[in-house]
Parts: sequence; structure tokens; C-alpha cells
Amino acid sequence: MAKQKKSELKTIKIFDTTLRDGEQSPGASMNIEEKLRIAKHLQKLNVDVIEAGFPIASEGDFEAVKKVAQTIKGPEIAGLCRSGFKDIDRGWEALQYAGEKGRIHTFIATSDIHMKYKLKMTPSQVLDAAVKAVKRAKSYTPNVEFSCEDAVRTDLKFLGEVVGAVIDAGATTVNIPDTVGYTIPFEYFNIITYLKENVANIDNAVISVHCHNDLGLSVANSIAAVQAGAGQVECTINGIGERAGNCSLEEFVMTLKTRGDILPFKTNVVTEQLTPASRLLTTVTGIVVQPNKAIVGANAFAHEAGIHQHGVLMEKSTYEIMTPESVGLKTNVLVLGKHSGRHAFKKRLEELGYELSDEMLNKAFERFKALADLKKEVYDEDLDAIVTDEELLRAEEKYMLSHITVTCGSFAVATATVQMEIDGTPCRTAELGDGPVDATLKAIKKLTKTKAKLTQYNVGSITGGTDAQGEVTVRLADGERTVIGRGSSTDIIEASAKAYIHGLNRLALKKDRVTDSL
Amino acid sequence: MAKQKKSELKTIKIFDTTLRDGEQSPGASMNIEEKLRIAKHLQKLNVDVIEAGFPIASEGDFEAVKKVAQTIKGPEIAGLCRSGFKDIDRGWEALQYAGEKGRIHTFIATSDIHMKYKLKMTPSQVLDAAVKAVKRAKSYTPNVEFSCEDAVRTDLKFLGEVVGAVIDAGATTVNIPDTVGYTIPFEYFNIITYLKENVANIDNAVISVHCHNDLGLSVANSIAAVQAGAGQVECTINGIGERAGNCSLEEFVMTLKTRGDILPFKTNVVTEQLTPASRLLTTVTGIVVQPNKAIVGANAFAHEAGIHQHGVLMEKSTYEIMTPESVGLKTNVLVLGKHSGRHAFKKRLEELGYELSDEMLNKAFERFKALADLKKEVYDEDLDAIVTDEELLRAEEKYMLSHITVTCGSFAVATATVQMEIDGTPCRTAELGDGPVDATLKAIKKLTKTKAKLTQYNVGSITGGTDAQGEVTVRLADGERTVIGRGSSTDIIEASAKAYIHGLNRLALKKDRVTDSL
Repeated sequence: MAKQKKSELKTIKIFDTTLRDGEQSPGASMNIEEKLRIAKHLQKLNVDVIEAGFPIASEGDFEAVKKVAQTIKGPEIAGLCRSGFKDIDRGWEALQYAGEKGRIHTFIATSDIHMKYKLKMTPSQVLDAAVKAVKRAKSYTPNVEFSCEDAVRTDLKFLGEVVGAVIDAGATTVNIPDTVGYTIPFEYFNIITYLKENVANIDNAVISVHCHNDLGLSVANSIAAVQAGAGQVECTINGIGERAGNCSLEEFVMTLKTRGDILPFKTNVVTEQLTPASRLLTTVTGIVVQPNKAIVGANAFAHEAGIHQHGVLMEKSTYEIMTPESVGLKTNVLVLGKHSGRHAFKKRLEELGYELSDEMLNKAFERFKALADLKKEVYDEDLDAIVTDEELLRAEEKYMLSHITVTCGSFAVATATVQMEIDGTPCRTAELGDGPVDATLKAIKKLTKTKAKLTQYNVGSITGGTDAQGEVTVRLADGERTVIGRGSSTDIIEASAKAYIHGLNRLALKKDRVTDSL
Repeated sequence: MAKQKKSELKTIKIFDTTLRDGEQSPGASMNIEEKLRIAKHLQKLNVDVIEAGFPIASEGDFEAVKKVAQTIKGPEIAGLCRSGFKDIDRGWEALQYAGEKGRIHTFIATSDIHMKYKLKMTPSQVLDAAVKAVKRAKSYTPNVEFSCEDAVRTDLKFLGEVVGAVIDAGATTVNIPDTVGYTIPFEYFNIITYLKENVANIDNAVISVHCHNDLGLSVANSIAAVQAGAGQVECTINGIGERAGNCSLEEFVMTLKTRGDILPFKTNVVTEQLTPASRLLTTVTGIVVQPNKAIVGANAFAHEAGIHQHGVLMEKSTYEIMTPESVGLKTNVLVLGKHSGRHAFKKRLEELGYELSDEMLNKAFERFKALADLKKEVYDEDLDAIVTDEELLRAEEKYMLSHITVTCGSFAVATATVQMEIDGTPCRTAELGDGPVDATLKAIKKLTKTKAKLTQYNVGSITGGTDAQGEVTVRLADGERTVIGRGSSTDIIEASAKAYIHGLNRLALKKDRVTDSL
């Protein structure tokens, strides 16, 4: 298996849907600023297409897609639209700001089970709707992607007909999603091969694949599809997405990079940005990556067994098929100390991908100095926590925490005294609870008169040491709505209060919205 | 693709290595009781082989393998041994208690890179060592597995020679591991096919595969191998293991079960035990499963998008390829309340897999009653927390927590007063800190005069609600040694103190040991 020359490798387009399918993960909802922050990082990663959202789903989704289309340069910007004209018109309203880089991504289900139970349409009605949708989209932009939802469970002959018809209608990309995460590599290979061999105009469009991970096979399926001739892979950072998520961008990209010897493909992704992208997404969504996650898990490059360590020390390639550096993993490096100045601080933040206003930089620098006094070593993760927390505080928010005092212990009934500002008006109360967090959150609930249910509570210590800043993530549910709230502090009780209030502020903003998916 | 008849399906052996390769995950070390608890659950899952450990690695490993061999009925019990006679002799010393169900699993590396840099042996020396090892093992038991470490990167002709020679020497299972997680499905398919076609005596042994997940392809690779003729798959619960882990048992098993229509294979696994197994392992090791993990992640069966929900309500199969029930997932069920009696309590614990002594049952029941007074609803997870905590308290431990009192707040310096017993002698102190956890742990550190470094700190709320019992997991490092400590309480500070002390007790017990791996 001789190494292929770089020039012989076919480039596979990376279509990132972290902001659309990924954002539809339970609890992963992001606001516009957060979406933009992820989008900027996707630009750094150099993905080919960013699916920024589902414009008709809600006002917030529309604004997010519009903002990404206005701001991001380089990647194409896609927006998801059902096959109705209203969806497509609204989609282009947001996407137009990307100009020739704007891509309308429209879809309809083609499997018998979806046509019968969900759409209640006949195959010929579906075919007709698909063609009309593509033509409508085409009236706005030459860059049109069409997806056959639940393609893997679609009758193969009908799938071929739909694909041929939408390409005739002008689709430049046709997506064959495994919507329910059902296929296995050799079957998917055969489906793509069938289309290559039986659809006359197939070479007029790029074949795309979009795999879900319900059986843990999404990356392997994507690779099999590429081997059969697919030219675009839809994926997400950390593999987030509906249910068990989507094909993981970092796993797919690193497989091609590592196995270029037998897979004659490459991507345009800057792999050194993979670990930073993964961490940013975790910070923003609160969705953790398990330690044994491939490429970006905490243990992915850890060698525990004695002999392994011995082997690695002698010759890295005995157990290491890629270097930690190639995916942007650096061991915790002491970057700044109490004597670091504002310039070094600003520079480091820029390297971490933060562009702060002067006012925010000042606030963050103050917090950094205070933290540097408390801690001997300040790590990149501490800086992340500082900035994220400043960003939380920045917005004009309904609920603001003033201060807390807590007493608790094995024999004491936990008591919290909380002072807040609600719409600018100070108020305070005290509550007892089962433990200090319970007492604190009860006091906040009482003051804010809110009814949200706490459905998840997590504390991740961002850096080692008992003086670490703790970051608390809460998930709150209020009826149909779910939000994530985050807060950080060296005091876990204060961090909990901040996270809870952050979540309440988000709930106060969040509106219901329509969603759909591939 | 017509459904195969059950009788036509070939049974693939499931070789679970959670207790060996899984336990070598950074921080996943388990003590004998914990290993036994996992082993009992593997028995319920009805796996075919349990790899219980690496007997020569340490006294603790030896005892764990021996205990599992003595206790578990049903599955075969394997132990890993390098090719030296000392390893094999010691291995059988532990495995003999399983009688005819005992399997010696011996290995040596066969790839050029491993032979040259790690072993510093020539291919013919390696071949010779392999044959001698198998013959030695065979002198103890007819049930011998041989593994070619780093098989995927081994010269194919040499691999065939080694496999043929060890089968001649008496190996009944030959394992072709992808030690570094490097292969892709079609390549692995070709390697197994090569062996099937070119090794004359290949049908005298079962071909096994052992895939690592560095590129996210371990499940797909295992399936490709089975399609090429492999008859045993080595895997772990939650896919834990060295680096990015091993093939995930639940994903592999559910793929065969879900795609029986095109994969003519089955396993003996009781799939309804998959989710309980996953949760038990997380409880024991503190290693979390990400929400988007296939099969057992919190979101694996969650349908967020509106239309998906709509679809699921109308016809489950629109988006659901397997039922939550088939993997043993039940939504939180209120099982017990404050009026539940001891009998109901004991029965539910037994259903959850706990067999407690009368004394422990009494202690646990007291804690249940106290909790039921505080909380309106008591969930299975609460019971897990109670029992786990009782188990922690049960051992004769060096360090015992008596009580804590803490004061903290936005303007107060966090202060903790801690009273403990150290080897039975009471002592107490107070400490200030950056937050209440820091103050508490500093006080404990001062009293115990220990130097362990806190490298990880996590809080998972076991059940929803602000009155939830919080379970704190800490990871402590002392030189080369790493342990996990756990504690639970409705008071997060108390849970933190318990977890820290639990970790310190474990460090006080833990001895250094040799490790090696595939």
C-alpha cells in the first residue's frame, strides 16, 4: 500500500451542520452570539459549507442564519428549508447576505414509511414537490442542495428517480441521508454505487451523505460512501445531533488524513483546530465529550499501561497513529501568571479565538488579575472560564445576582441568603435547603417567582487543583422549553447560583419554535 | 432483503474485556469488589467470555481474576498473559478455579515496528516464543487464545505463518487485534479473508477480533471482520479501554440485532441488560458516557425536533430503529416512597443487581428512610447512590469523616471546620479557601498530611430537582498512582469531602503494578 501523492487525492467537501442538526440535540440550543462564535471557529477550521440553521423555524433561527451569512467569509453558508415555497422564500431572505456563497438546502422524505405516515403523500406527489422546491430555490441561487429524507430506507428505484429529477431541476448537490442511523458500510456503499451506475445525470451533481450514529457506524458509513463516489460529507463537531448524533467531523477528517495510504481522499480542514473546536462547543453547549471519545476525548492520547508508555517513549509510532499536535492538542501549558500584563493577556485571548471589546477586555483583565492572586498557575481553561463568564454578564439581563451567604454542615441546616436585582430592583431572601446548593437555588426561585424544573446539574472542574474555578452547567425545563445555563467561580455555590440565573435569563428570552430534521 | 430465520443466523461469541482492557483506561482502576460486581452483571448480560484481568500484573489483579473464576458461573473466564512462562503459570494459578471454563489468553507482538522497537526480537524468535507460549498454556487447559499484538500492521504473510503455527500448537482461538485503532472496514475484511483463504488449518480455531477506536471505526471494523468469517468479537461496556477505547459491546450487539435482515449473525447477549450495565460501569468507574453516545447515551432515544416528535407519535418506526425497552431503558420510574417497607426496598435492590448483607441492608434502609423524608420521589438512581455510598463506608478505612461545618458567600472568606477519625483517633481543624470545597479539602489534606493532587473533580446530579443527591467524583494522583474517589449527599460540600476521603483511602491501599495491553 504505497503512499498516494497529495495531488492524486480527491478533495471531499466538509459540510458542517453543528449549528443546525447539532443544535437540535436536546439541550444544545444556542443563541445568536453563540452560533456566531462557533461559526467563526468553523471558518478557522476551513470547512467547505456551514449549515447555519433552519431559517423558518423561528425568529431566532432566521436572525442567526442571516448574521452568519453576513459575517462569515470563506465557507458557503447553507440554510435548511422544507419543500414548501414559504420555507424556501424565507430561507433565501436570510441566506442572500452570503451572495454567491449562499446555499439553499431543501428536502422531503422519500421512504415509504415517511411518505405514508408523516407526509401522507403518494410517491408521485413527493417527486413533484421535490422538483418544484428545487426550481423555486434555483430561482434565487445556482447553489441548491436537495436531500431525500430517510434515503436509506427508500425504495432504490424510486430514490434513483427522485435524484435524477432534482438534478434535472437544477440541484447541484444531492444528499442521501441515513436519517435514522440504520445502515452499515457495505449496504451504504451499494446504495451510492447504485446511484452512480443508474442515474444518467448523476455526474452533474455532488453526492452528499449525512449519517446518524444510532448504531455507532456513522463515520464508517461516511467513509464507505466516499469510497463509492460521494463528494461531500455532512458532519458535526463532537458528533452532536439528534439522538446519538451525526458523523463526527474530527473522526472523519482524521481517518482520511491518517489513512491516505489506502483512502485516496483529503479534506481542506485545518486539523490543528479540531481540539479547540471541540472544547469551544463543549463550553458553549455544556454537552460533554466522554474521555474515551476518539480524537478529542481526554484519554484519546493518554497511554496508561506501563508497557505502552515504555513503547511510546522508545518509538512513538508503536502505539501512536497520529500526533496530539496534529489535532491541536497541547498539554496544559502555563500561559500567564500574576505578573503578566494586559498585552500578553489580550494576545493569548486572541490566540484562543476571543475578540473582545475594550470594555469587556478590561473587565476580563480585572478578573484575571484577581484570579492570578488566588491561583499560582493560570491555564487556558481558566481564561475560557473568565471570558465566558464575562460574556454571560455582558448582556442586559432580567435577573442579576448581587451576593450570597451560605452556612451548612453535617449538623447545620443549610441556609442561604441571596440578594438579587430583578429588572433593576433589589430584593433579598433567605431559604433553608437540603444542602447549600438546594438552599441557594430555592432562594433564587422564590425571588424570581419562576417555575423552571432543574433537570440536570453538572460541575466540571476546568483545571486541576482544589482552587480550580468550577464551571457549573444546569439544564432547566419549563414546559416544552429547555435551556442550558452556565456559571463559573472558585466557589461552587456561587457558580451554581450564576448558572441557575443564567438559565432563567435564557428561559425568559427563549421562544417556542418549529423544528425539523434529516 | 428478506428477514433471515433465527436458525440461519451464526452465533458470534462476545468476549468482554471491560475488566482488563477497559480497566486500563486512565483512572478506571477497580478494586476486587467492584470487579466482581461488574462480572456479575456480565453474567446477567450472558456474554460468552469475561476477560477478568492480567493476573501477573499485580497481587490485586491476581486476586480479582481468581475471585471472578471462583464466583462466576456460565461465561468462560479469561486472563491475559504475556508469552513468558512465568506469566502463563501465574495466569493459570488464578484461572484454574474456573475449571474447564478457564481460558489462558497469551500474546506477543508481530508487527515489524513492535518487534524491532519494543521486543527487540527477530520474526523467527517471535514465532518461536508464540508457539512455546501456546504449548505451555495448553499443558494447563484445552482452552487457549493467542493474540498477535498489532496484527493490522503486521506483514500479512508473517501473520499467516504465526496464526498457522499457533493453531498447530493448540490455540483454539486466534485474535487479530487492531491494537492501535488504525484499520478501516474494507482493509480489515481483507485481512481476515486472507487468513481464511491462506492458512490451511484456520478452521480449527475461532478467529477473534479486538478493535480500538482511535479513528471511531471499531464497531464497523468488528462487523466487517465478522462478515469475513470472524467468530468472536472482543469489546467493552461503554467502549472504555486504552486511549479512545475498544469496540462498544452495546453498539456491536445492537447492530447485529437491528440488521439481522442483512447480517446473518446473532449473539447470546440479553440486550435488556445493556443500559443497566452501562450505568453500573459509570457508577463504579466515574467515567461518564456522553449524551450522544449510541445506544446508552442520555439522548440516544430522545427526539428533540418537533416534526420528529410528531413522526414518532404517529408511527414509532418513522424515526426509531430499535425500541428503548429492547436495551433496557426505562424512563425514571418512581419506585419507592416514604411508606415503602423493608421488603419492597430489598426486592427493588435485588432487581437492581445488589445483594446486600443484613447489616448493609439495614444501614441502607435507614438512609433510604431519611432520604424519603427529604425528597418526595425516590428513583432507582437514588438507590444506586445510597448503596454505593454504603459500600464505600463499609470497608475498614484509614480515614473517616465525622462532620463538617462551612460558611461562605460573596463577601465571606470560605471557612470549613472538619472533624475526622484517622486510624480511629479523632482530630479536627479549620481552614480558609477559595470557595467552600477548596476550604474543606484543604482541611482534610491538613489533617491527613497527604500530598495527592486533585486532577479531576466532577459532580453529576443523579436525579433531577434541586434536592437531588449529588454524586461527586474526584480523581487523585500521587506520583504514578491515580485513583477515583466517590461520595454522595444532598449537600455538595459533604459529598465532596466524602469523595476526597474515599480517594485518599484508596490511595492508601493501592500498590504499583505492571500492565500491558493489546
